Amino acid sequence: MRIEKDILAKNDAYARENRERLKEAGVFAINLVSSPGSGKTTLLVKTIEMLKSTVPVVVIEGDQETSLDAERIRATNIPTVQINTGRGCHLDAHMVGHALDSLPLKRNSILFVENVGNLVCPAGFDLGEALKVAILSVTEGDDKPLKYPDTFAAASMMVLSKIDLLPHLDFDVAACIEHARSINPDIAVLQVSARSGAGMVGWIDWLINSADRAARAEGVVHGHA
Amino acid sequence: MRIEKDILAKNDAYARENRERLKEAGVFAINLVSSPGSGKTTLLVKTIEMLKSTVPVVVIEGDQETSLDAERIRATNIPTVQINTGRGCHLDAHMVGHALDSLPLKRNSILFVENVGNLVCPAGFDLGEALKVAILSVTEGDDKPLKYPDTFAAASMMVLSKIDLLPHLDFDVAACIEHARSINPDIAVLQVSARSGAGMVGWIDWLINSADRAARAEGVVHGHA
Repeated sequence: MRIEKDILAKNDAYARENRERLKEAGVFAINLVSSPGSGKTTLLVKTIEMLKSTVPVVVIEGDQETSLDAERIRATNIPTVQINTGRGCHLDAHMVGHALDSLPLKRNSILFVENVGNLVCPAGFDLGEALKVAILSVTEGDDKPLKYPDTFAAASMMVLSKIDLLPHLDFDVAACIEHARSINPDIAVLQVSARSGAGMVGWIDWLINSADRAARAEGVVHGHA
Repeated sequence: MRIEKDILAKNDAYARENRERLKEAGVFAINLVSSPGSGKTTLLVKTIEMLKSTVPVVVIEGDQETSLDAERIRATNIPTVQINTGRGCHLDAHMVGHALDSLPLKRNSILFVENVGNLVCPAGFDLGEALKVAILSVTEGDDKPLKYPDTFAAASMMVLSKIDLLPHLDFDVAACIEHARSINPDIAVLQVSARSGAGMVGWIDWLINSADRAARAEGVVHGHA
Protein backbone atom coordinates (compact mmCIF):
# COMPACT_ATOMS: atom_id res chain seq x y z
CA MET A 1 0.00 0.00 0.00
CA ARG A 2 1.29 3.41 -1.06
CA ILE A 3 0.41 5.16 2.24
CA GLU A 4 2.21 2.53 4.28
CA LYS A 5 5.30 2.92 2.09
CA ASP A 6 5.32 6.70 2.57
CA ILE A 7 5.03 6.36 6.35
CA LEU A 8 7.86 3.84 6.43
CA ALA A 9 10.08 5.96 4.17
CA LYS A 10 9.56 8.99 6.44
CA ASN A 11 10.28 6.87 9.50
CA ASP A 12 13.45 5.49 7.94
CA ALA A 13 14.74 9.01 7.25
CA TYR A 14 14.26 9.95 10.92
CA ALA A 15 15.82 6.63 11.97
CA ARG A 16 18.93 7.39 9.88
CA GLU A 17 19.23 10.78 11.61
CA ASN A 18 18.92 9.17 15.05
CA ARG A 19 21.46 6.48 14.17
CA GLU A 20 23.97 9.07 12.95
CA ARG A 21 23.45 11.21 16.04
CA LEU A 22 23.83 8.26 18.42
CA LYS A 23 26.99 7.06 16.66
CA GLU A 24 28.50 10.56 16.79
CA ALA A 25 27.71 10.75 20.50
CA GLY A 26 29.10 7.26 21.14
CA VAL A 27 25.79 5.93 22.48
CA PHE A 28 24.86 2.26 21.98
CA ALA A 29 21.08 2.04 21.53
CA ILE A 30 18.96 -1.06 22.10
CA ASN A 31 15.31 -1.32 21.07
CA LEU A 32 13.49 -3.70 23.45
CA VAL A 33 10.43 -5.32 21.89
CA SER A 34 7.98 -7.81 23.39
CA SER A 35 4.36 -8.59 24.26
CA PRO A 36 2.70 -6.66 27.07
CA GLY A 37 3.68 -8.17 30.40
CA SER A 38 6.78 -10.05 29.25
CA GLY A 39 8.76 -8.52 32.09
CA LYS A 40 10.61 -5.88 30.02
CA THR A 41 10.52 -3.22 32.74
CA THR A 42 11.49 -5.59 35.57
CA LEU A 43 14.40 -6.88 33.47
CA LEU A 44 15.39 -3.31 32.64
CA VAL A 45 15.35 -2.19 36.29
CA LYS A 46 17.62 -5.12 37.28
CA THR A 47 19.84 -4.50 34.26
CA ILE A 48 20.29 -0.84 35.19
CA GLU A 49 21.13 -1.75 38.79
CA MET A 50 23.84 -4.13 37.58
CA LEU A 51 25.18 -1.85 34.81
CA LYS A 52 25.06 1.65 36.16
CA SER A 53 28.27 1.63 38.21
CA THR A 54 30.16 0.57 35.04
CA VAL A 55 28.28 2.14 32.12
CA PRO A 56 26.11 5.29 31.98
CA VAL A 57 22.54 4.34 31.06
CA VAL A 58 19.56 6.36 29.80
CA VAL A 59 16.07 5.15 28.97
CA ILE A 60 13.21 6.02 26.62
CA GLU A 61 9.94 4.43 27.80
CA GLY A 62 7.14 3.81 25.31
CA ASP A 63 3.61 3.09 26.48
CA GLN A 64 0.14 3.59 25.09
CA GLU A 65 -0.86 5.30 28.36
CA THR A 66 0.53 5.99 31.87
CA SER A 67 4.06 6.73 33.07
CA LEU A 68 4.07 3.75 35.46
CA ASP A 69 7.09 2.17 33.80
CA ALA A 70 9.05 5.42 33.57
CA GLU A 71 8.48 5.92 37.31
CA ARG A 72 9.89 2.45 38.00
CA ILE A 73 12.96 3.28 35.89
CA ARG A 74 13.38 6.74 37.44
CA ALA A 75 13.53 5.09 40.87
CA THR A 76 16.94 3.77 39.73
CA ASN A 77 18.10 7.42 39.29
CA ILE A 78 18.59 7.05 35.56
CA PRO A 79 17.59 9.81 33.09
CA THR A 80 14.31 8.63 31.56
CA VAL A 81 11.87 10.07 29.03
CA GLN A 82 8.33 8.71 28.78
CA ILE A 83 6.56 8.69 25.41
CA ASN A 84 2.81 7.99 25.44
CA THR A 85 1.62 6.85 22.04
CA GLY A 86 -2.14 7.22 22.74
CA ARG A 87 -3.78 5.09 20.06
CA GLY A 88 -0.39 4.29 18.50
CA CYS A 89 0.81 0.71 18.70
CA HIS A 90 4.57 1.34 18.47
CA LEU A 91 7.25 4.01 18.86
CA ASP A 92 8.51 5.69 15.70
CA ALA A 93 11.85 7.31 14.92
CA HIS A 94 10.45 10.85 15.02
CA MET A 95 9.20 10.41 18.61
CA VAL A 96 12.55 8.93 19.60
CA GLY A 97 14.41 11.85 18.00
CA HIS A 98 12.46 14.29 20.19
CA ALA A 99 13.12 12.19 23.28
CA LEU A 100 16.87 12.26 22.53
CA ASP A 101 16.75 16.08 22.83
CA SER A 102 15.92 15.69 26.54
CA LEU A 103 18.52 13.06 27.42
CA PRO A 104 22.22 13.43 28.30
CA LEU A 105 24.05 11.49 25.56
CA LYS A 106 27.42 10.44 27.02
CA ARG A 107 30.23 8.68 25.19
CA ASN A 108 30.29 4.89 25.80
CA SER A 109 26.81 4.91 27.32
CA ILE A 110 23.85 2.65 26.62
CA LEU A 111 20.36 3.85 25.65
CA PHE A 112 17.52 1.39 26.21
CA VAL A 113 14.34 2.13 24.28
CA GLU A 114 11.47 0.15 25.77
CA ASN A 115 8.93 -0.09 22.97
CA VAL A 116 5.15 -0.37 23.40
CA GLY A 117 4.25 -3.95 24.40
CA ASN A 118 3.31 -5.42 21.03
CA LEU A 119 4.78 -8.32 19.02
CA VAL A 120 3.53 -7.05 15.64
CA CYS A 121 3.84 -3.33 14.96
CA PRO A 122 7.25 -2.35 16.40
CA ALA A 123 9.01 -4.84 14.09
CA GLY A 124 8.55 -2.62 11.02
CA PHE A 125 9.74 0.63 12.56
CA ASP A 126 13.47 1.26 12.75
CA LEU A 127 14.17 3.77 15.55
CA GLY A 128 17.86 4.24 14.73
CA GLU A 129 18.95 1.64 17.29
CA ALA A 130 22.13 -0.44 17.01
CA LEU A 131 20.09 -3.59 17.57
CA LYS A 132 16.74 -4.98 18.62
CA VAL A 133 16.28 -7.42 21.50
CA ALA A 134 13.06 -9.47 21.58
CA ILE A 135 12.00 -10.50 25.06
CA LEU A 136 9.73 -13.53 25.26
CA SER A 137 8.35 -14.59 28.61
CA VAL A 138 8.21 -18.36 28.98
CA THR A 139 4.60 -17.93 30.17
CA GLU A 140 3.65 -16.93 26.59
CA GLY A 141 4.30 -20.29 24.94
CA ASP A 142 7.10 -21.67 22.76
CA ASP A 143 5.22 -21.11 19.45
CA LYS A 144 5.44 -17.30 19.54
CA PRO A 145 8.45 -16.90 17.17
CA LEU A 146 6.44 -18.72 14.46
CA LYS A 147 3.26 -16.73 15.09
CA TYR A 148 4.95 -13.30 15.21
CA PRO A 149 7.89 -13.89 12.83
CA ASP A 150 8.68 -10.26 11.89
CA THR A 151 9.70 -9.42 15.46
CA PHE A 152 12.04 -12.39 15.74
CA ALA A 153 13.43 -11.85 12.23
CA ALA A 154 14.36 -8.27 13.16
CA ALA A 155 15.98 -9.07 16.51
CA SER A 156 19.66 -9.85 17.15
CA MET A 157 18.86 -11.44 20.50
CA MET A 158 15.92 -13.34 21.98
CA VAL A 159 15.82 -13.17 25.77
CA LEU A 160 13.64 -15.86 27.32
CA SER A 161 12.42 -14.21 30.52
CA LYS A 162 10.73 -15.41 33.73
CA ILE A 163 12.55 -18.76 33.59
CA ASP A 164 11.95 -19.14 37.36
CA LEU A 165 8.39 -20.12 36.30
CA LEU A 166 9.50 -22.96 33.98
CA PRO A 167 8.77 -25.72 36.54
CA HIS A 168 5.10 -24.61 36.55
CA LEU A 169 4.65 -24.40 32.77
CA ASP A 170 4.54 -26.58 29.64
CA PHE A 171 7.18 -24.58 27.78
CA ASP A 172 9.72 -26.38 25.58
CA VAL A 173 12.88 -24.23 25.60
CA ALA A 174 14.64 -26.24 22.88
CA ALA A 175 11.57 -26.10 20.60
CA CYS A 176 11.24 -22.34 21.15
CA ILE A 177 14.89 -21.75 20.19
CA GLU A 178 14.45 -23.99 17.14
CA HIS A 179 11.36 -21.98 16.10
CA ALA A 180 13.24 -18.68 16.53
CA ARG A 181 16.23 -19.95 14.49
CA SER A 182 13.92 -21.25 11.74
CA ILE A 183 12.89 -17.57 11.31
CA ASN A 184 16.31 -16.06 12.04
CA PRO A 185 19.27 -18.48 12.00
CA ASP A 186 21.64 -15.89 13.52
CA ILE A 187 19.54 -14.89 16.53
CA ALA A 188 21.39 -15.14 19.85
CA VAL A 189 19.43 -16.56 22.80
CA LEU A 190 19.73 -16.07 26.55
CA GLN A 191 17.55 -17.39 29.35
CA VAL A 192 17.06 -15.10 32.34
CA SER A 193 15.00 -14.52 35.44
CA ALA A 194 15.15 -10.96 36.73
CA ARG A 195 13.48 -12.26 39.88
CA SER A 196 15.88 -15.08 40.78
CA GLY A 197 18.88 -13.49 39.07
CA ALA A 198 19.48 -16.59 36.91
CA GLY A 199 21.23 -15.72 33.64
CA MET A 200 21.57 -12.02 34.52
CA VAL A 201 25.38 -11.99 34.49
CA GLY A 202 25.43 -13.51 31.00
CA TRP A 203 22.96 -10.85 29.82
CA ILE A 204 25.00 -7.98 31.30
CA ASP A 205 28.13 -9.47 29.76
CA TRP A 206 26.47 -9.68 26.34
CA LEU A 207 25.33 -6.04 26.60
CA ILE A 208 28.77 -4.73 27.54
CA ASN A 209 30.49 -6.80 24.83
CA SER A 210 27.99 -5.70 22.16
CA ALA A 211 28.41 -2.04 23.08
CA ASP A 212 32.18 -2.44 23.15
CA ARG A 213 32.28 -4.18 19.77
CA ALA A 214 30.15 -1.42 18.25
CA ALA A 215 32.40 1.30 19.73
CA ARG A 216 35.52 -0.40 18.34
CA ALA A 217 33.94 -0.81 14.90
CA GLU A 218 33.12 2.90 14.95
CA GLY A 219 36.70 3.67 15.98
CA VAL A 220 37.98 1.76 12.92
CA VAL A 221 35.54 3.51 10.60
CA HIS A 222 36.60 6.92 11.89
CA GLY A 223 40.28 6.00 11.93
CA HIS A 224 40.71 6.20 15.72
CA ALA A 225 41.53 2.49 16.20
CA MET B 1 -5.83 11.82 10.77
CA ARG B 2 -8.09 11.76 7.71
CA ILE B 3 -6.80 8.40 6.40
CA GLU B 4 -7.38 6.72 9.74
CA LYS B 5 -10.97 8.04 9.82
CA ASP B 6 -11.66 6.67 6.33
CA ILE B 7 -10.31 3.25 7.26
CA LEU B 8 -12.41 3.15 10.42
CA ALA B 9 -15.56 4.33 8.59
CA LYS B 10 -15.09 1.57 5.99
CA ASN B 11 -14.53 -0.99 8.73
CA ASP B 12 -17.63 0.15 10.60
CA ALA B 13 -19.76 -0.30 7.49
CA TYR B 14 -18.55 -3.91 7.12
CA ALA B 15 -19.05 -4.44 10.86
CA ARG B 16 -22.69 -3.29 10.60
CA GLU B 17 -23.22 -5.80 7.77
CA ASN B 18 -21.67 -8.63 9.82
CA ARG B 19 -23.74 -7.69 12.89
CA GLU B 20 -26.97 -7.67 10.88
CA ARG B 21 -26.12 -11.00 9.26
CA LEU B 22 -25.21 -12.64 12.59
CA LYS B 23 -28.39 -11.36 14.24
CA GLU B 24 -30.53 -12.64 11.35
CA ALA B 25 -28.85 -16.03 11.63
CA GLY B 26 -29.24 -16.10 15.43
CA VAL B 27 -25.48 -16.36 16.05
CA PHE B 28 -23.97 -14.82 19.19
CA ALA B 29 -20.47 -13.54 18.31
CA ILE B 30 -17.68 -12.89 20.80
CA ASN B 31 -14.45 -11.09 19.89
CA LEU B 32 -11.61 -12.39 22.09
CA VAL B 33 -8.78 -9.87 22.53
CA SER B 34 -5.56 -10.18 24.51
CA SER B 35 -1.77 -10.06 24.45
CA PRO B 36 0.12 -12.83 22.67
CA GLY B 37 0.42 -15.83 24.95
CA SER B 38 -2.41 -14.94 27.36
CA GLY B 39 -3.84 -18.43 26.92
CA LYS B 40 -6.71 -17.48 24.55
CA THR B 41 -6.45 -20.67 22.49
CA THR B 42 -6.11 -22.99 25.48
CA LEU B 43 -9.13 -21.32 27.11
CA LEU B 44 -11.05 -21.58 23.84
CA VAL B 45 -10.29 -25.30 23.41
CA LYS B 46 -11.53 -26.05 26.96
CA THR B 47 -14.54 -23.79 26.44
CA ILE B 48 -15.51 -25.62 23.26
CA GLU B 49 -15.15 -29.00 24.98
CA MET B 50 -17.51 -27.87 27.73
CA LEU B 51 -19.99 -26.07 25.45
CA LYS B 52 -20.27 -28.16 22.33
CA SER B 53 -22.74 -30.77 23.58
CA THR B 54 -25.13 -27.91 24.53
CA VAL B 55 -24.46 -25.12 22.01
CA PRO B 56 -23.15 -25.28 18.42
CA VAL B 57 -19.83 -23.42 18.23
CA VAL B 58 -17.80 -22.07 15.29
CA VAL B 59 -14.46 -20.25 15.37
CA ILE B 60 -12.58 -17.64 13.36
CA GLU B 61 -8.86 -17.67 14.22
CA GLY B 62 -6.74 -14.56 13.62
CA ASP B 63 -2.96 -14.74 13.57
CA GLN B 64 -0.17 -12.83 11.93
CA GLU B 65 1.27 -16.13 10.63
CA THR B 66 0.74 -19.92 10.95
CA SER B 67 -2.40 -21.97 11.40
CA LEU B 68 -1.15 -23.54 14.66
CA ASP B 69 -4.10 -22.21 16.66
CA ALA B 70 -6.70 -23.18 14.05
CA GLU B 71 -5.29 -26.72 14.08
CA ARG B 72 -5.69 -26.86 17.87
CA ILE B 73 -9.31 -25.69 17.53
CA ARG B 74 -10.04 -28.08 14.63
CA ALA B 75 -8.93 -30.97 16.84
CA THR B 76 -12.16 -30.32 18.80
CA ASN B 77 -14.14 -31.02 15.56
CA ILE B 78 -15.50 -27.49 15.38
CA PRO B 79 -15.82 -25.59 12.07
CA THR B 80 -12.88 -23.16 12.05
CA VAL B 81 -11.56 -20.58 9.59
CA GLN B 82 -8.00 -19.26 9.89
CA ILE B 83 -7.21 -15.69 8.85
CA ASN B 84 -3.52 -14.78 8.53
CA THR B 85 -3.06 -11.02 8.69
CA GLY B 86 0.57 -10.98 7.47
CA ARG B 87 1.88 -7.58 8.57
CA GLY B 88 -1.55 -6.62 9.94
CA CYS B 89 -1.88 -6.24 13.69
CA HIS B 90 -5.61 -6.96 14.06
CA LEU B 91 -8.58 -8.53 12.30
CA ASP B 92 -10.96 -6.20 10.48
CA ALA B 93 -14.66 -6.55 9.70
CA HIS B 94 -14.07 -7.18 5.99
CA MET B 95 -11.85 -10.23 6.71
CA VAL B 96 -14.43 -11.53 9.18
CA GLY B 97 -17.23 -11.09 6.62
CA HIS B 98 -15.32 -13.32 4.18
CA ALA B 99 -14.69 -15.90 6.89
CA LEU B 100 -18.43 -16.00 7.68
CA ASP B 101 -19.05 -17.16 4.09
CA SER B 102 -17.23 -20.42 4.88
CA LEU B 103 -18.88 -21.18 8.23
CA PRO B 104 -22.19 -22.89 9.02
CA LEU B 105 -24.22 -20.22 10.86
CA LYS B 106 -26.77 -22.06 13.00
CA ARG B 107 -29.54 -20.52 15.10
CA ASN B 108 -28.62 -20.20 18.81
CA SER B 109 -24.96 -20.92 18.14
CA ILE B 110 -21.86 -19.09 19.38
CA LEU B 111 -19.11 -17.72 17.14
CA PHE B 112 -15.76 -17.06 18.82
CA VAL B 113 -13.43 -14.74 16.93
CA GLU B 114 -9.91 -15.06 18.31
CA ASN B 115 -8.21 -11.81 17.37
CA VAL B 116 -4.48 -11.36 16.71
CA GLY B 117 -2.60 -11.26 20.03
CA ASN B 118 -2.30 -7.51 20.59
CA LEU B 119 -3.59 -5.25 23.37
CA VAL B 120 -3.56 -2.07 21.25
CA CYS B 121 -4.84 -2.39 17.67
CA PRO B 122 -7.89 -4.69 17.89
CA ALA B 123 -9.62 -2.28 20.31
CA GLY B 124 -10.46 0.21 17.55
CA PHE B 125 -11.87 -2.30 15.05
CA ASP B 126 -15.47 -3.41 15.46
CA LEU B 127 -15.93 -6.80 13.77
CA GLY B 128 -19.73 -6.92 14.17
CA GLU B 129 -19.51 -8.97 17.38
CA ALA B 130 -22.13 -8.88 20.14
CA LEU B 131 -19.39 -8.23 22.68
CA LYS B 132 -15.66 -8.18 23.29
CA VAL B 133 -13.95 -10.24 25.99
CA ALA B 134 -10.47 -9.15 27.10
CA ILE B 135 -8.32 -11.99 28.43
CA LEU B 136 -5.49 -10.98 30.73
CA SER B 137 -3.08 -13.62 31.95
CA VAL B 138 -2.04 -13.04 35.56
CA THR B 139 1.57 -13.50 34.41
CA GLU B 140 1.31 -10.15 32.58
CA GLY B 141 0.98 -7.91 35.64
CA ASP B 142 -1.93 -6.13 37.31
CA ASP B 143 -1.16 -2.73 35.70
CA LYS B 144 -2.15 -3.75 32.15
CA PRO B 145 -5.70 -2.24 32.15
CA LEU B 146 -4.13 1.18 32.86
CA LYS B 147 -1.41 0.80 30.25
CA TYR B 148 -3.70 -0.49 27.46
CA PRO B 149 -6.96 1.29 28.37
CA ASP B 150 -8.72 1.15 24.98
CA THR B 151 -8.93 -2.64 25.08
CA PHE B 152 -10.43 -2.72 28.58
CA ALA B 153 -12.76 0.20 27.80
CA ALA B 154 -14.15 -1.72 24.82
CA ALA B 155 -14.63 -5.06 26.61
CA SER B 156 -17.77 -6.27 28.42
CA MET B 157 -15.77 -8.90 30.32
CA MET B 158 -12.21 -9.23 31.60
CA VAL B 159 -11.15 -12.84 32.09
CA LEU B 160 -8.12 -13.20 34.35
CA SER B 161 -6.50 -16.37 33.00
CA LYS B 162 -3.78 -18.77 34.25
CA ILE B 163 -4.82 -18.24 37.90
CA ASP B 164 -3.19 -21.59 38.77
CA LEU B 165 0.10 -19.61 38.57
CA LEU B 166 -0.95 -16.96 41.15
CA PRO B 167 1.01 -18.59 44.02
CA HIS B 168 4.23 -18.08 42.01
CA LEU B 169 3.59 -14.44 41.01
CA ASP B 170 3.33 -10.94 42.49
CA PHE B 171 -0.06 -10.21 40.98
CA ASP B 172 -2.64 -8.24 42.97
CA VAL B 173 -6.07 -9.44 41.76
CA ALA B 174 -8.01 -6.75 43.66
CA ALA B 175 -5.75 -3.99 42.30
CA CYS B 176 -6.12 -5.32 38.75
CA ILE B 177 -9.92 -5.32 38.99
CA GLU B 178 -9.83 -1.80 40.46
CA HIS B 179 -7.63 -0.65 37.54
CA ALA B 180 -9.99 -2.23 34.99
CA ARG B 181 -13.06 -0.62 36.62
CA SER B 182 -11.35 2.78 36.76
CA ILE B 183 -11.28 2.54 32.92
CA ASN B 184 -14.62 0.77 32.52
CA PRO B 185 -16.91 0.75 35.60
CA ASP B 186 -19.28 -1.81 34.03
CA ILE B 187 -16.73 -4.46 33.06
CA ALA B 188 -17.53 -7.94 34.39
CA VAL B 189 -14.63 -9.98 35.73
CA LEU B 190 -14.02 -13.71 36.00
CA GLN B 191 -10.94 -15.60 37.18
CA VAL B 192 -10.17 -18.87 35.41
CA SER B 193 -7.55 -21.51 34.86
CA ALA B 194 -8.10 -23.60 31.75
CA ARG B 195 -5.42 -25.93 33.10
CA SER B 196 -6.85 -26.63 36.57
CA GLY B 197 -10.46 -26.00 35.54
CA ALA B 198 -10.94 -23.35 38.26
CA GLY B 199 -13.62 -20.84 37.33
CA MET B 200 -14.50 -22.61 34.08
CA VAL B 201 -18.10 -23.41 35.05
CA GLY B 202 -18.74 -19.75 35.88
CA TRP B 203 -17.30 -18.73 32.51
CA ILE B 204 -19.45 -21.25 30.58
CA ASP B 205 -22.48 -20.10 32.56
CA TRP B 206 -21.77 -16.47 31.71
CA LEU B 207 -21.41 -17.33 28.00
CA ILE B 208 -24.69 -19.26 27.83
CA ASN B 209 -26.56 -16.58 29.77
CA SER B 210 -25.15 -13.78 27.60
CA ALA B 211 -26.09 -15.60 24.40
CA ASP B 212 -29.52 -16.38 25.79
CA ARG B 213 -30.13 -12.78 26.87
CA ALA B 214 -29.13 -11.54 23.40
CA ALA B 215 -31.42 -14.08 21.70
CA ARG B 216 -34.38 -13.05 23.86
CA ALA B 217 -33.73 -9.35 23.23
CA GLU B 218 -33.72 -10.13 19.49
CA GLY B 219 -36.93 -12.09 19.88
CA VAL B 220 -38.62 -9.08 21.46
CA VAL B 221 -37.35 -6.77 18.75
CA HIS B 222 -38.62 -9.07 16.00
CA GLY B 223 -41.87 -9.82 17.83
CA HIS B 224 -41.20 -13.55 18.37
CA ALA B 225 -41.05 -13.33 22.19
